[in-house]
Amino acid sequence: MEKIRIGIVGYGNLGRGVQYAAQQNTDIEITAVFTRRAPESVQTVLPVKVERYENMKNYVGKIDVMILCGGSATDLPEQSAQVVKLFNTVDSFDTHAKIPEYFEKLDAAAKETGHLGAMSIGWDPGLFSLARIYFGSALADGSTYTFWGKGVSQGHSDAIRRVKGVKDARQYTVPVESALERVRAGENPDLTTREKHTRECYVVAEEGADLARIEKEIKEMPNYFADYDTTVHFISEEELKRDHGGIPHGGFVLRSGKSAADNKFLLEFSLKLDSNPEFTSSVLLAYARAVVRMHAEGKIGAVTVFDIAPKYLSPLSEEEQRKQLL
Amino acid sequence: MEKIRIGIVGYGNLGRGVQYAAQQNTDIEITAVFTRRAPESVQTVLPVKVERYENMKNYVGKIDVMILCGGSATDLPEQSAQVVKLFNTVDSFDTHAKIPEYFEKLDAAAKETGHLGAMSIGWDPGLFSLARIYFGSALADGSTYTFWGKGVSQGHSDAIRRVKGVKDARQYTVPVESALERVRAGENPDLTTREKHTRECYVVAEEGADLARIEKEIKEMPNYFADYDTTVHFISEEELKRDHGGIPHGGFVLRSGKSAADNKFLLEFSLKLDSNPEFTSSVLLAYARAVVRMHAEGKIGAVTVFDIAPKYLSPLSEEEQRKQLL
Repeated sequence: MEKIRIGIVGYGNLGRGVQYAAQQNTDIEITAVFTRRAPESVQTVLPVKVERYENMKNYVGKIDVMILCGGSATDLPEQSAQVVKLFNTVDSFDTHAKIPEYFEKLDAAAKETGHLGAMSIGWDPGLFSLARIYFGSALADGSTYTFWGKGVSQGHSDAIRRVKGVKDARQYTVPVESALERVRAGENPDLTTREKHTRECYVVAEEGADLARIEKEIKEMPNYFADYDTTVHFISEEELKRDHGGIPHGGFVLRSGKSAADNKFLLEFSLKLDSNPEFTSSVLLAYARAVVRMHAEGKIGAVTVFDIAPKYLSPLSEEEQRKQLL
Repeated sequence: MEKIRIGIVGYGNLGRGVQYAAQQNTDIEITAVFTRRAPESVQTVLPVKVERYENMKNYVGKIDVMILCGGSATDLPEQSAQVVKLFNTVDSFDTHAKIPEYFEKLDAAAKETGHLGAMSIGWDPGLFSLARIYFGSALADGSTYTFWGKGVSQGHSDAIRRVKGVKDARQYTVPVESALERVRAGENPDLTTREKHTRECYVVAEEGADLARIEKEIKEMPNYFADYDTTVHFISEEELKRDHGGIPHGGFVLRSGKSAADNKFLLEFSLKLDSNPEFTSSVLLAYARAVVRMHAEGKIGAVTVFDIAPKYLSPLSEEEQRKQLL
């Protein structure tokens, strides 16, 4: 069997994760990493060719699908429409509000040259989106809830680091257990932002900094913390490194509802991830397999998890899937 | 918008459930129920035309999809290939060992006349199969576990009723909490049949029956009970009716595994259903929507949940799905 040839665009946590995940999928191989940094400055976790971003065009015909591992803020909106003109792509675009616009742009670019681009792949958007659509379709009369955590929010950690006097910080988003229990009990509650999640901040302050002011500035920060019950813990740099070095995440999608005969149903999907980027990468790789298969069948344009039948994701043949998994 | 016109074939718990579920889906209407009993003997939960099974052919062009609500032992293997020659179909065939053979037969019959038949739809096979394929694809290195219950097993209840001296019975399949916890803890245990589930039996004995013998016969029954820790409770007919009148079910699909960098992941999907048939029916209806849409795009033959992209299930447009659910 010929292996699926993957290119990794951008080599941060996600790119590293794709390299790890490829080790576990014997039908997939990594052909090259593409970077906008100096290639010789990129240390990969496993040996692989590192190329300049601009040299990508030399790999047309040698790579089946590019996995875009950049960020949603600036990298992906710029890169995806460029790369999809040369290759099939998979990306993890996760700026929810901009998804419709991003879809249109990717779809048009992909169709120009007959490629396929799978966007917003990962766990949210991604597997959690799947739970929302399957649950909502299977149970028409009900309410769907998404809770995140316990896990590290990179965006919120960065926001704390911008506060004057803060040297480093790690922020955890934590689902409120009592809110989860109310949903599980079938109460179908209307939950405010504050009722669903709390925010726990671990902060390393600069020497002599005014801790009370830092705590106040964090807790009152609009959008990020003001709408939440926020706890601030000041710790040492060593403690941060020792106890908060990982990037765990996870969460819950629940749907609670009833039949027209008034029988109650509860559907729940949850994830506990020791490494958020390594799991996201593993999902990206499964969808890379799907993209190659669907493109071989003639599918072009932009697609999301909603457009991709599950059979395309599995390394098993359709007969094996029916026999072993159905 | 024109409504999707549904026919119900067979009117037991599932057929009733489809009628209830149609009340919650405004894009769907039930055109007729088809039965092999005398139509006038069939009491429907909501008003609907009841027709003889043989008169189905008069509805060609008036019904978009038939939902087959018969049993997997004898009804579906006989009916599905017949009905699919006239209509698109959805069924809940759940005899796991016979799925490959059933698929081939349905596929050939459907292709003969250009129809589409979705088979093995419900929650297991169905939503649980989806969890197994998505989880396994997203996390290549891991172990998948399925637990059922707590819920009523109709087959096991029937087996108890065949024991001499038993008037009525209800059997619950119960997952072993400590086994679930070992999986959640990431132990990846090898679990025997006995370690995964227990069986709780509520038995109404005939007057003067030898209870010790009944209990022994149940506990030693091969295939059904011998491989499990089984508990037998003798109760009165009134207690059975009062406390065990429902048909609840549910269960868990879990996958536990790790990245090549040794970070652990746990994926879990669970269902708690007050009524097993009413939830199954609700899933059948969502897939009926998918069948109509896919057939309109030219898809024919037999399909399972693995072949059906999630977008086809939702009443929302693709734009709305991306905006609201992704």
